[in-house]
Amino acid sequence: MPAESNRAGGAEAQPEVHPLAAPLVAGHRRALARAITLAESSRPDHQQEAQRLLAEVLPHAGRSVRIGLTGVPGVGKSTFIEALGLHLTGAGHKVAVLAVDPSSQRTGGSIMGDKTRMPGLTADPNAFIRPSPSGGALGGVARRTREAITLCEAAGHDVILIETVGVGQSETQVAAMTDVFVLLTLPNAGDELQGLKRGIMERADVCVVNKADTDPAATNRAQSELAAALHLLTPRLADWQPRVLQSSALRGRGLEEVWAAVQDFMSSPERVERKRRAQTGTWFDDLLREAAWERLSAGIDVAELRRTRSQVLAGTLTPVQGVLNLMPPTGA
Amino acid sequence: MPAESNRAGGAEAQPEVHPLAAPLVAGHRRALARAITLAESSRPDHQQEAQRLLAEVLPHAGRSVRIGLTGVPGVGKSTFIEALGLHLTGAGHKVAVLAVDPSSQRTGGSIMGDKTRMPGLTADPNAFIRPSPSGGALGGVARRTREAITLCEAAGHDVILIETVGVGQSETQVAAMTDVFVLLTLPNAGDELQGLKRGIMERADVCVVNKADTDPAATNRAQSELAAALHLLTPRLADWQPRVLQSSALRGRGLEEVWAAVQDFMSSPERVERKRRAQTGTWFDDLLREAAWERLSAGIDVAELRRTRSQVLAGTLTPVQGVLNLMPPTGA
Repeated sequence: MPAESNRAGGAEAQPEVHPLAAPLVAGHRRALARAITLAESSRPDHQQEAQRLLAEVLPHAGRSVRIGLTGVPGVGKSTFIEALGLHLTGAGHKVAVLAVDPSSQRTGGSIMGDKTRMPGLTADPNAFIRPSPSGGALGGVARRTREAITLCEAAGHDVILIETVGVGQSETQVAAMTDVFVLLTLPNAGDELQGLKRGIMERADVCVVNKADTDPAATNRAQSELAAALHLLTPRLADWQPRVLQSSALRGRGLEEVWAAVQDFMSSPERVERKRRAQTGTWFDDLLREAAWERLSAGIDVAELRRTRSQVLAGTLTPVQGVLNLMPPTGA
Repeated sequence: MPAESNRAGGAEAQPEVHPLAAPLVAGHRRALARAITLAESSRPDHQQEAQRLLAEVLPHAGRSVRIGLTGVPGVGKSTFIEALGLHLTGAGHKVAVLAVDPSSQRTGGSIMGDKTRMPGLTADPNAFIRPSPSGGALGGVARRTREAITLCEAAGHDVILIETVGVGQSETQVAAMTDVFVLLTLPNAGDELQGLKRGIMERADVCVVNKADTDPAATNRAQSELAAALHLLTPRLADWQPRVLQSSALRGRGLEEVWAAVQDFMSSPERVERKRRAQTGTWFDDLLREAAWERLSAGIDVAELRRTRSQVLAGTLTPVQGVLNLMPPTGA
């Protein structure tokens, strides 16, 4: 990848090409950071620029392993990402760390922004850490994160680690944009899984009992319990049975096994392609409906919408009647 | 309820009142059947009539236990519904049996239409059985079933059993419209749960190992396994831990226990109210977005939509770009 660096200066002089495209594809960190900032901007001209840039670099994207990571607070996510990330950069990979925190309204000020959580990766030239974007229009945080993935991939990052931060829909959103979804748990998994959002365990492709060193016996027990529970659940993919592993990120143990499971998952291009296509299709359909709603709701009086919704919730109006009242079928 | 029958003839002579409203609320079966047929019709004038009727009877709806039932084919759903339904009519309840089968395109010809599956209930004057509706416009099968629930409730049915039929989204749809979602399993639950759709077990408020008489030892084992798995899963409701019971519908055993669990769930009006409000809110928001999409998509060329979606799936266009192409932000 460093061999390609001189492409950054190789201006092809086409007026349509966005000036960030070449340095971004050449892997310049600053170009990548600026491109993500552009994509995160809600200014219409920035948005147009960002869409042009994304279209230009899209052919360079897609060649990475997208790993989602989730787990309750205290499970050791930062330490795990730091350890796994350094393990991977040490093995020659270029790693990007992103986060999804729908609750974050602080621009650049999310928990992820606190790079002191991952001092090793922060100092590593082959790692790129980006805080969670804040809301924005169509598609919100999920859109900004997906665009950041594309940009990181185009910049040559072949491992993208996407962390869930905060509450809300972040786990579901991250699971819907990653190839391998990893659930970190603690040795006392039985109690702790109760704190997880519903449906998260069913989305896990890999479960890792972290902090295994603190209580090996409990860790083994948790591993068996999780394996038994996952065996009972319907596998999300017909050709992948979720794995349950152990790790001690603090002591650097178990990371090779996690990475081996990830590679195992990725070893079937058909499986990855099928999963990505399904994710993309759902995302596109959701975006279409969201865009349609944004468009139409602009013509709906907010107070009327709120009043109608209250009536529906109070049971004095059926949902269908509420919708018909707001959008009369005779049409404008 | 028979005491109210004379209300059917008691014309209040208000021209706005739909002629089916009074006999329906009086509990006349034929009026109920005709009202559901009206609601299922896709003719615009029928739809307007149906909405008027629904609005009129809405104050009489909501006072029932809505029980969803799911399970793989062969689990004995029909026998279970027949046995539970007769148990309940025997105890003085008025029972309605509905079905959700999104795959059914045959009007009135769905599997549920085969009333020979439930001969006892079919002949029972206190039971009302209705086949799964077919598709239709806004809201589809789920909407028709929700409207049928409202009409059955208004007709005095205080227990609504809604069965999932066929494949697809029926389990999710039924879980989203019922108070208590019951998952029927077989004694060999370990193997059989693999055949369930993902996320179904997590939605169960009550699990029942049916056909317990065929293999008591396996039934006990399945019960323990299910209880352990459900304990590991995050409960959907903070104040309800899913129950795992046994039954032999064929021998009429375990039905009291299932009904007791349902009543237990319903014993907290706050819990039921909270669940129903959440269901209604989600349904309303989904319908709004669907209506907006229906409205807007009418102006989108189908071939262009298909072409754009292919490009998005092929990765040559980002989903956001696809949406922006189909719905340029500059407006019409």
